[in-house]
Amino acid sequence: MNIHEFRKPEYDVDPIFLNRWSPRAMSGEEISQTEILSLFEAARWAPSANNNQSWRFIYARRNTPYWQTFFDLLAELNQIWAKNAAILIVVISKTTFDHSEKYARTHTYDTGAAWENLALQGSSKGWVVHGMQGFDYDRAKEVLKIPDLYQVEAMIAVGRPGKKEDLPAKYLEREFPSSRKTLSEIVMEGLFRG
Amino acid sequence: MNIHEFRKPEYDVDPIFLNRWSPRAMSGEEISQTEILSLFEAARWAPSANNNQSWRFIYARRNTPYWQTFFDLLAELNQIWAKNAAILIVVISKTTFDHSEKYARTHTYDTGAAWENLALQGSSKGWVVHGMQGFDYDRAKEVLKIPDLYQVEAMIAVGRPGKKEDLPAKYLEREFPSSRKTLSEIVMEGLFRG
Repeated sequence: MNIHEFRKPEYDVDPIFLNRWSPRAMSGEEISQTEILSLFEAARWAPSANNNQSWRFIYARRNTPYWQTFFDLLAELNQIWAKNAAILIVVISKTTFDHSEKYARTHTYDTGAAWENLALQGSSKGWVVHGMQGFDYDRAKEVLKIPDLYQVEAMIAVGRPGKKEDLPAKYLEREFPSSRKTLSEIVMEGLFRG
Repeated sequence: MNIHEFRKPEYDVDPIFLNRWSPRAMSGEEISQTEILSLFEAARWAPSANNNQSWRFIYARRNTPYWQTFFDLLAELNQIWAKNAAILIVVISKTTFDHSEKYARTHTYDTGAAWENLALQGSSKGWVVHGMQGFDYDRAKEVLKIPDLYQVEAMIAVGRPGKKEDLPAKYLEREFPSSRKTLSEIVMEGLFRG
């Protein structure tokens, strides 16, 4: 696939960002523990306020007793394709600073940075890495026994790429790298402009 | 600098993540408009729920009328070194979905992902990119005329690298790539473990 058929950058940019997208077609193969941990290794080096590293990752591998619990958290529209993932991850963040126990204002923002490292690392290896908000946040907190000090942020499906032709028609037609707003819509000099 | 003197990855990871850190020593030189826009170009391709792209960036270049307004938002402890930045950025996020006007649960998380793309892009070019939460959030919202639909997330200082010997002693001793928690502290299989 030539990414430039789908995405037109306005300015020079490292190809790692352009090449990352969110496919749904996965093969159902497993991913080794070492490979899984390399994803979290990437996440680990993200920046955070006071280096507080608010991010935590709880994961389940397919063909383990944890899988069904994680899978059942997903909205049906995600289950349809995420059933072929190798791992499912629940991303959470600690809402306070380790050193002071005060509220850490950027705990979600910093955790988003860690998630992007994970996504870029997996996509650079040729894997599918797909973030999801379509799941039961409250139930995730409950069944994974997440303490109140932590906030559930998102889920992620990771897997080996599969045949897109096996996706339901609704998803097949969306199985390509999405475009973006223009830079002029998201960047402003000096003052907010809507 | 050999990054491996400071950071010991436990698993194989793309060097772009390990090489990104948050220096403070900047030269006070300007950065061209084209170079500035390449940072936002990287941010632009981040993933987000429903491709909503909640991130917005408001920036001020040094030697422009906007600079002082942005600089005055910073806490004194950040002004000491950020005075040598080429640009200051206020990162904000739109709290609702464009298509439904419903609350977008991951607006901050997704904006954190975009911020990380920006940080990685700048750092891969050899620039200083340093995120900050030490500034007046309420005043930023007011003076930059940011509507209530948007949330202020963080600020960023970007500049050309400078001589670390010019930093105040307090910062000089911190001018190296910071370490991280171990993977076992942030990754759990199946269930939360504190």
